[in-house]
Amino acid sequence: MNSRITPEQTAFTQTELANLPSRKRARLINSLSGYKSANLIGTQNQQGQTNLAVVSSVVHLGSSPALFAMVMRPHTVRRDTLENIRETGVWTQNAICQGMLAQAHQTSAAYPRELSEFEAVGLTAAYYPNFLAPYVVESPLQLGFRCVEITPIKHNQTELVIGEMQWVKFPSSALQKDGYLDLASFGTAAISGLDAYHVPSAPQRFAYAELDKKARLLPPTGTEE
Amino acid sequence: MNSRITPEQTAFTQTELANLPSRKRARLINSLSGYKSANLIGTQNQQGQTNLAVVSSVVHLGSSPALFAMVMRPHTVRRDTLENIRETGVWTQNAICQGMLAQAHQTSAAYPRELSEFEAVGLTAAYYPNFLAPYVVESPLQLGFRCVEITPIKHNQTELVIGEMQWVKFPSSALQKDGYLDLASFGTAAISGLDAYHVPSAPQRFAYAELDKKARLLPPTGTEE
Repeated sequence: MNSRITPEQTAFTQTELANLPSRKRARLINSLSGYKSANLIGTQNQQGQTNLAVVSSVVHLGSSPALFAMVMRPHTVRRDTLENIRETGVWTQNAICQGMLAQAHQTSAAYPRELSEFEAVGLTAAYYPNFLAPYVVESPLQLGFRCVEITPIKHNQTELVIGEMQWVKFPSSALQKDGYLDLASFGTAAISGLDAYHVPSAPQRFAYAELDKKARLLPPTGTEE
Repeated sequence: MNSRITPEQTAFTQTELANLPSRKRARLINSLSGYKSANLIGTQNQQGQTNLAVVSSVVHLGSSPALFAMVMRPHTVRRDTLENIRETGVWTQNAICQGMLAQAHQTSAAYPRELSEFEAVGLTAAYYPNFLAPYVVESPLQLGFRCVEITPIKHNQTELVIGEMQWVKFPSSALQKDGYLDLASFGTAAISGLDAYHVPSAPQRFAYAELDKKARLLPPTGTEE
């Protein structure tokens, strides 16, 4: 699409959004935030009962130290995840990739707590040394986090769960010499809305933007530094 | 990629991550959070000086009311955005789409405050009625937010800026009957790492997951309800 051809638009005011039927409103509002990171969060309780949940709200907070956050809502099926994090203090983040989309989505069914989603959908749990949350063997990108802060969002009773990265495993061939990890090279998915998965193709990388220079594409391997 | 063929992996511990050169570490850690929403945030100060900044940390907090958040870091060029939001209380979120990738990326150059990024990169500012932040005419998906809360993240001095959606405009043809907005149909981009843009193709939508049923694909138009 050429950006100069503006498509016909529909506008909604705040009141019109509020008056939509609730499921339709949820699908629309969830679509409007754009593409989201597609992850399975792996946890277990103190008895070792494992849990897997799709979480699309992971956001980068900082690189030094490496801190990510995710949004947890009360009264959702993901509550197990939050309770397990409160009990053990740790979780894994596992990228959802091509070839495991159906299994990943199926973890969102309302399984009874005593049945692990690993078992229910046929994914394999494994453990990083001395780390008490299971990761997903089938995911090529696995990360381990230790909870450092749970910040309540006053305005709507959600909580921001903040973790410090403890370890990461990724496909060796995806790491570029400048540190960029080529997510597309191993089929990483993105989520849109509540139920849609996309597997983006190769990136267009841009050089660091400078005054009085036009935007310039980088090779996928990045810069020399 | 078949998920059963596990590629050779590289592992980094927390210490190994901390010991990477800082720009390389930033590129890697920023890649590990997965695909991110690609937006230009439009603001202005009380004197009407406009600003545009790429923000890839937008996250959905809730749909009723419609609340989004974005992460703002101290000591970055995006500080103008936060100062403007503190002054006027409002901002626009404009999806970065195919055809405007180079212009959007170029807004991240260190322009002096008195030069608007709109002017510097050749994007067009316009105003929604009674709303004191400029939106980007060239973006097909534009949203207006009013700031309701700024929550500090104690652990690394970032701030979570939370807004309630006031209005939205999107391409009419992208709205599906069940409320899903087909971002791919108008070339919406995703970001990976610090400098990479992707334009995902059509979504694979899955039906609401149920116990004792296999995951089932939906048509792109969604469900009938």
